Amino acid sequence: MRRIAAALLHHPVVDRQGRVVTTAITNLDLHDIARSAHTYALEAFFIVHPVAAQRALAERVQRHWTLGSGARRIPDRTAPMSMLRVVSSLDEAISAFDTDAEIWTTSARRSPGALSFDDARARLRCEGASVLLVFGTGWGLCPELHARATAHLDPILSPRSDGYNHLSVRAAAAIVFDRLMSL
Amino acid sequence: MRRIAAALLHHPVVDRQGRVVTTAITNLDLHDIARSAHTYALEAFFIVHPVAAQRALAERVQRHWTLGSGARRIPDRTAPMSMLRVVSSLDEAISAFDTDAEIWTTSARRSPGALSFDDARARLRCEGASVLLVFGTGWGLCPELHARATAHLDPILSPRSDGYNHLSVRAAAAIVFDRLMSL
Repeated sequence: MRRIAAALLHHPVVDRQGRVVTTAITNLDLHDIARSAHTYALEAFFIVHPVAAQRALAERVQRHWTLGSGARRIPDRTAPMSMLRVVSSLDEAISAFDTDAEIWTTSARRSPGALSFDDARARLRCEGASVLLVFGTGWGLCPELHARATAHLDPILSPRSDGYNHLSVRAAAAIVFDRLMSL
Repeated sequence: MRRIAAALLHHPVVDRQGRVVTTAITNLDLHDIARSAHTYALEAFFIVHPVAAQRALAERVQRHWTLGSGARRIPDRTAPMSMLRVVSSLDEAISAFDTDAEIWTTSARRSPGALSFDDARARLRCEGASVLLVFGTGWGLCPELHARATAHLDPILSPRSDGYNHLSVRAAAAIVFDRLMSL
């Protein structure tokens, strides 16, 4: 299996109107996605935020679960929260993880040439570069990030006839990890 | 496809020591699981809590997203939050959904005779009774609930060698819906 990590981007992402924005950190994203990433044997989970005060918040939440009272109260969260790494940009995440890593982006929208989950699952089981799975907050990653990626994963499609598809990023990340990494 | 709904129980569930307890509602469970349930075409999502003040809290969160400022700000959440039904017990959920519904319980632990996800997926596509998928908060559903169920779903297993498996109930519900209901 290739080395795999995930990154949650708060910038550059788009809002409902497609404008590039910076979103605020949602505390629960940190431990929900860290627990999912750890359960599915990812190596690291990067929280990417350009604002120092927001990174300090993420680090404080991390310390609560790794060193503070949270670690004593719910020790099962210590291991996943220890794999969390708070960085200021996607480039910093790549430097910290593996400078040769491939970027695989995710989206709730279809795009031409996207990688199917079956193919992605098979690719991860062949030898190759490390993979950084990138998730966007807000209304998703900005188009430039997809253009820069080695692969763009298929969206998670709804079985509904109206195509409703508004999963939280926490739910989407859990499903992506399960589709790619489950036994 | 059979009619399917989900229920999130806050009582009777167990704590780390296996004692039967009542957990508090986590606001984010409501809209995360509702969005996942709606995306995967479930018919209803029941929040089960025996304490009236906690039910009132859940109903206030629901109104925020269906009638209040949340509905105007993020209209995509209105449909999933409209399928949320706040009840005091599992029996009340069954009465409101379908008195002939089968109860299918979920757990993070293995149990003998559990239903595999492949078999569960196939069963849902055959004619049969409605199915209520039941998820527990805290450290999971109390044993009596599993004993009462028609089926007990296999746990979501980790590919890790140490078997770490501490998904949030939000992540677990998303993965279960995806495994059972995805296209």
